[in-house]
Amino acid sequence: MAVTPTPSASFSITLRVAIDNREGTLPRVTGAISESGGDITGVDVVDSYDGMTVREINVSARNQDHYKSIINALVKVPGAKLLETTDRTFDMHQRGKIEQHNKHPLKTRDDLSMAYTPGVARVCMAIHENVEKAYKYTIKANTVAVVSDGTAVLGLGDIGPEAAMPVMEGKAMLFKEFAGVDAFPICLNTKDPDEIVRTVELLAPTFGGINLEAISSPRCFEIERRLKESLDIPVFHDDQHGTAVVVIAALLNASKLIGKPISEMRVLVLGLGAAGIAVTEMLELAGVKDVIGCDRKGALHTEREDWETMGPVKQRYAEHTNKDKVGGGPNDAIEGCDLLIGLSGPGVIEAQSLAKMNDDAIVFAMANPTPEVMPEEAAPYVRIMATGRSDYPNQINNVLCFPGIFRGAMDARATAITDEMKMAAAEGIAACVPEGEISEDYIIPSVFNREVAKEVAKAVEIEAERSGVAKLEDDGATTIDLPAVG
Amino acid sequence: MAVTPTPSASFSITLRVAIDNREGTLPRVTGAISESGGDITGVDVVDSYDGMTVREINVSARNQDHYKSIINALVKVPGAKLLETTDRTFDMHQRGKIEQHNKHPLKTRDDLSMAYTPGVARVCMAIHENVEKAYKYTIKANTVAVVSDGTAVLGLGDIGPEAAMPVMEGKAMLFKEFAGVDAFPICLNTKDPDEIVRTVELLAPTFGGINLEAISSPRCFEIERRLKESLDIPVFHDDQHGTAVVVIAALLNASKLIGKPISEMRVLVLGLGAAGIAVTEMLELAGVKDVIGCDRKGALHTEREDWETMGPVKQRYAEHTNKDKVGGGPNDAIEGCDLLIGLSGPGVIEAQSLAKMNDDAIVFAMANPTPEVMPEEAAPYVRIMATGRSDYPNQINNVLCFPGIFRGAMDARATAITDEMKMAAAEGIAACVPEGEISEDYIIPSVFNREVAKEVAKAVEIEAERSGVAKLEDDGATTIDLPAVG
Repeated sequence: MAVTPTPSASFSITLRVAIDNREGTLPRVTGAISESGGDITGVDVVDSYDGMTVREINVSARNQDHYKSIINALVKVPGAKLLETTDRTFDMHQRGKIEQHNKHPLKTRDDLSMAYTPGVARVCMAIHENVEKAYKYTIKANTVAVVSDGTAVLGLGDIGPEAAMPVMEGKAMLFKEFAGVDAFPICLNTKDPDEIVRTVELLAPTFGGINLEAISSPRCFEIERRLKESLDIPVFHDDQHGTAVVVIAALLNASKLIGKPISEMRVLVLGLGAAGIAVTEMLELAGVKDVIGCDRKGALHTEREDWETMGPVKQRYAEHTNKDKVGGGPNDAIEGCDLLIGLSGPGVIEAQSLAKMNDDAIVFAMANPTPEVMPEEAAPYVRIMATGRSDYPNQINNVLCFPGIFRGAMDARATAITDEMKMAAAEGIAACVPEGEISEDYIIPSVFNREVAKEVAKAVEIEAERSGVAKLEDDGATTIDLPAVG
Repeated sequence: MAVTPTPSASFSITLRVAIDNREGTLPRVTGAISESGGDITGVDVVDSYDGMTVREINVSARNQDHYKSIINALVKVPGAKLLETTDRTFDMHQRGKIEQHNKHPLKTRDDLSMAYTPGVARVCMAIHENVEKAYKYTIKANTVAVVSDGTAVLGLGDIGPEAAMPVMEGKAMLFKEFAGVDAFPICLNTKDPDEIVRTVELLAPTFGGINLEAISSPRCFEIERRLKESLDIPVFHDDQHGTAVVVIAALLNASKLIGKPISEMRVLVLGLGAAGIAVTEMLELAGVKDVIGCDRKGALHTEREDWETMGPVKQRYAEHTNKDKVGGGPNDAIEGCDLLIGLSGPGVIEAQSLAKMNDDAIVFAMANPTPEVMPEEAAPYVRIMATGRSDYPNQINNVLCFPGIFRGAMDARATAITDEMKMAAAEGIAACVPEGEISEDYIIPSVFNREVAKEVAKAVEIEAERSGVAKLEDDGATTIDLPAVG
């Protein structure tokens, strides 16, 4: 199941090379790079001297070893001298990827006396008198904390809070870019659920929402539940619910395309971490009645031999799924399923097993970067295929959900993100693929479709208002008690 | 001791007024405002219809009552109709004063694959392998937390975490504006020192420094001490040390001007809160040997009748100050002093009492907004007068210290801000008034002198390196193990 990665911008390097001006040297340089499998994405002249021209060559590679082999080939070219190498990904991360920005200038004494002392005191006292005004006059109006303990970062596992920061900063960038939400990354130096819960509770006055991120299962369930109970701002564990919302969005359109209602589908969920559990819950909300969950030990049911030790989360899961007590591994449990949802690891199911699925089989294989089954191999057996990858059709990516869902929740001044709001978000995403354009290769909008976050925000805000989760704005009064006007 | 405030931008309002075009109406409007004592700072035409012109008039007032009287006068002018009033200070605070900003675009798949998955994983793993690289590849390199519990905000007291946010946001703006430091405000929903300490410890992976702010005394001392012990990033309680640094800076130049060494001065400190205690400690570091501290109950000494109940902080204070056991209140203890430092409340000392000071008396009366003694009243008795206010000469303002001291500490990768670094900062500030220009009205540079933060940062960084508090940069190696170049 080994897959050779293709060169990508994520392994992109800039080579600064002095090349003599004799005919043939430059083509030998670019030839050496290309023959080593490097993908040249740009060449710029940056300097010239003594019969040499200095060029910066951007090259995409497959991985670190591939880098080295490209450079080893390059340094053997006569007349070329490698001056410097810059890793463009590391370069982009220098001193972090986000920064603070002042919304108003502070150039004069008048600026200072309004933004800071003495003028700020009046604003403080207005909030002191009515704490709801924090939503009007502080960053709480538009700021989400992206909170992690660094225990379940991407596929990397427990790498610690400092090492998790680049991911949380990236998340903050996506919040801003796609929905104008100001997000701030907070990586905590503890794995203790009590400490994480208490810390977030204490931070809450500053923030209008909490996005939990990369916290390992099953601690993530308890942490989220307790914070939802104690806080009056939206708390959302994106690894669970963001994934679930986007899966449901894709499923809504897939169901339309094959003409089979969701409620009649049998679904196999591979991988019962945070995402697998949350996806199952949302499948059930969407009307799915027949789910089989499968972890490393096989299909989950109430009579599996490790029942005693599987823990309360999986016990609850087993109690309301897999009524037929289907046993075995993924390659067995797949029989008679309409939909396979993979949230596990690379190559967990064999392509041939997909032949046992019902007609019009749907496979969402979302393990990253290598799916549970590769699309090329699955193709003969499935009608609709989606992955988490950008280099195949139908990319299921959380960025379709979290910016818009927080935008909508915050615009509504919602006190929570409810199941109904999540469902509205899924429908909002699905609706961004126009009805007439839904096809096997287009069940989910592009990550770069700028309409998605807007549509999601709108749908979520409407649902929050409909269901009474939205707080009425009670801070619209004039801030000073002026004589009646007009 | 009542002082009528002058109209200021901190009470600035925009009046949107429809004024008929008959001759004389506009002058009647502006006349009504001016006669009520309002200070017109701008008039713009914004619309016109039906023989009316709509103008926006910016007016500075003294306070809220003054606002009302201006508006009451305005609405009586025939031919003028007040359409809307906007408080410019509140307006500036809408949805907070700071925002997140992405340092790189996220417009293409390549952008996304470098800033987020999959490229970000390599950066995460580089930090996981060497946690020091967090300073190279995350916002820790340049980000300070401004942490408060909202218990001692300006002169407003314990107003709570939400109401404290506008001040902390203002502080964050000043960090950015004057020293390019990214600061983020964190207002905590607890007053318990254990919880505050633990929360800041858990947040530390994200930040390169901690600026404690507006935490009431004596809790602030314990919180700062414990955090300095447990964290390896600079922890600085600005209300204490920022104030102390700027006071010492002013004193250095005052001492030069009057030609009397600091070590020969007798100093009376009025007010023994966080700032008074810290200023005294720094006076002693600077060589002052004779300090008398004075709280609401009078001059502090080891035989004062409330010794048992004054608490450990004041007991320690009494033990190494006021050796002569001078008693009485400020008006008594002032006798024979060279320098009065006020960090207490309005009008705490009578101007006439200053006559009892030594020749070339120096008074720093920093209670805000109304000093311990007004400069006009003190003038006959003192040679050098400073306040915390911007409308008198010699403004002693923390903004001269905190942006630069953190800039320097972070540039040095200092693990703490030591006494020596604070002294270097004071000398850096003092040196921004050129030796030949020091005068009674110019012992301290302007808040808007852009050189100050640079000079402070440079002095602090040099001192950190000299004294070994600076961490050596050990992250300069290439991020990928490339073949030798050249």
